[in-house]
Amino acid sequence: MRQLNLSIVGFGTAGRWLAAALHRRDGWLQAECGVRVKLVSVATRRDGFIFQPAGFDLATLLDMAADGRSLADYPGVRRWDTALAGLAETSADVLAEASNTDPRQPEPALSHMRYALGQSRHVITSSKGPCAAAAVELFALARQCGVQFRCEATVMSGTPVLSALREGLAGSRVLALQGILNGTANHILTLMAQGQDYTAALADAQARGYAEPDPADDVEGHDVAAKARILAAVAFGCAVPLDDVWRQGITGLTAADVRQAARAESRLKLVASLKPRPAGDRTPLDVRVEPLVLPLADPLARVDGVQNALRIETDTTSPVTIIGPGAGRGQAGQGLFADLVAVARGL
Amino acid sequence: MRQLNLSIVGFGTAGRWLAAALHRRDGWLQAECGVRVKLVSVATRRDGFIFQPAGFDLATLLDMAADGRSLADYPGVRRWDTALAGLAETSADVLAEASNTDPRQPEPALSHMRYALGQSRHVITSSKGPCAAAAVELFALARQCGVQFRCEATVMSGTPVLSALREGLAGSRVLALQGILNGTANHILTLMAQGQDYTAALADAQARGYAEPDPADDVEGHDVAAKARILAAVAFGCAVPLDDVWRQGITGLTAADVRQAARAESRLKLVASLKPRPAGDRTPLDVRVEPLVLPLADPLARVDGVQNALRIETDTTSPVTIIGPGAGRGQAGQGLFADLVAVARGL
Repeated sequence: MRQLNLSIVGFGTAGRWLAAALHRRDGWLQAECGVRVKLVSVATRRDGFIFQPAGFDLATLLDMAADGRSLADYPGVRRWDTALAGLAETSADVLAEASNTDPRQPEPALSHMRYALGQSRHVITSSKGPCAAAAVELFALARQCGVQFRCEATVMSGTPVLSALREGLAGSRVLALQGILNGTANHILTLMAQGQDYTAALADAQARGYAEPDPADDVEGHDVAAKARILAAVAFGCAVPLDDVWRQGITGLTAADVRQAARAESRLKLVASLKPRPAGDRTPLDVRVEPLVLPLADPLARVDGVQNALRIETDTTSPVTIIGPGAGRGQAGQGLFADLVAVARGL
Repeated sequence: MRQLNLSIVGFGTAGRWLAAALHRRDGWLQAECGVRVKLVSVATRRDGFIFQPAGFDLATLLDMAADGRSLADYPGVRRWDTALAGLAETSADVLAEASNTDPRQPEPALSHMRYALGQSRHVITSSKGPCAAAAVELFALARQCGVQFRCEATVMSGTPVLSALREGLAGSRVLALQGILNGTANHILTLMAQGQDYTAALADAQARGYAEPDPADDVEGHDVAAKARILAAVAFGCAVPLDDVWRQGITGLTAADVRQAARAESRLKLVASLKPRPAGDRTPLDVRVEPLVLPLADPLARVDGVQNALRIETDTTSPVTIIGPGAGRGQAGQGLFADLVAVARGL
């Protein structure tokens, strides 16, 4: 039985879900992938980087995290102040980077991933910010170092869209992508289509825990812009500078705008669109995040609430549309787990 | 650069599309997968099994096939009367089995695949009949022999649903599947919902080349039953005997039935449903193929024409629905190509 030593940096919802899944699915991993995964290090901003070369007992570790105890109290561990210092002085086969939930901020997650890939460690991540900024670089670095870099959880969380682009539709050339990629904004627009105004719909999203107290990332389109840049890297191999993303959020929409669309057998949705530009244009890819009126015959128009969807047009198959959760407890963790399985199967 | 020797058995639409894709994407395969694929043998019922150890020139071979010439006329080849005889006396790393389009008939494709797996050759296939009858056995044999067995093209053709179940959602336990899996039947029901009667809708499907002169496989649910049995193997690891599939086709539906559903904000669809039975039942899985009335709020109700769709419910993510082509020129070939890439990446 091969052994895979894992380091988890960032022990919030996604990181803990991954650890819990390793515990629950240990037998499955051994039977299905012929691999035993040992969690040897875990890092949080508060507790620092904690290393246990014999491997953590996952139930104990998860209990400590749930109780709010410092992970540095785990028996027999070594500790470093920062994840980067710990990564540099310990070894592991795979880094799961789950520390960064800000779509506009690449660091410190980007440094963690660059370092690990440079050491020929596989990297799986749910951190959107660094992937939006540098996915093309990270894919190239991984290839150069002979390891895998995977980020399924960064777009539509656990809904398998990046693996569909890279593996399920392997060899197809993507002609265009169009997606609803933010559950919070879509929930707000769904309520507005039912007659609520923007303020009431936002308050509802905040009350349900979908939207942060400062909802800018969701409603101004920053989160969708980050996901669109990740899709540009995965589907087109293009590094798109942030300034080249045309971005318009939903804060300027009135209830009348949304209701008017609903009356006309259509729906107003916050849509990300990616399409190659004609040869000779300044940039190779047109990337837009904006409210669009979609006719009800378009499957994307029917995607309501916190659901997300992506339509993939290729040079071989008719369009493929994948609809699934865009967020939610366990979804991002499932994306990390699927990436870990892909790494294990590729060993 | 590693070399992968490929054998294609069955040189109809899917087999030829695969050969053409190998030709067109040769550079991509080398750059992306680090592998050079060499087609060393090809078999058809008419021409027998033709072996060219130096590798066929793909353009020449495809021209010969398009012109209806015997592939045995290709210069410098050896020939056997049957694919099984040729497979036994020549070697290859991968068998692409594309000979069988009958969902109710496993042979001779099943014997080809059993033989190749037993020789530790990877197998990829678009042949539904043998997978419906024996996918659980073939997956087990592949595992035992340390090779891959993949059959993406057998369900929803090139739409990546089997890879989503096995890889994209890896580790999730599937709780239920529900799908529209036959484009011809769905096209007929779509026309009936618009007011045509069954006979006129079937004639339209036949005129468009969607339905065979004998449409039984499509309209009696045999094709969907085969796909449901394949899904049972991939998602639940269950070998479901044909007699355990509850099957009802669309031939008994009247225009009035379909219109009544359409008036009630719903649609009548031919639906495959798979769900585990309570422990202690005679069989572990409930597999049904039958016309069902679906409310319009269900994304499956909106899947019209020759489109197909599959909804996947798991223990981790909210339901994921994948909509895409169920048939069409090049779709099955794309499924085979994606499977070949997965084999190449796993080397």
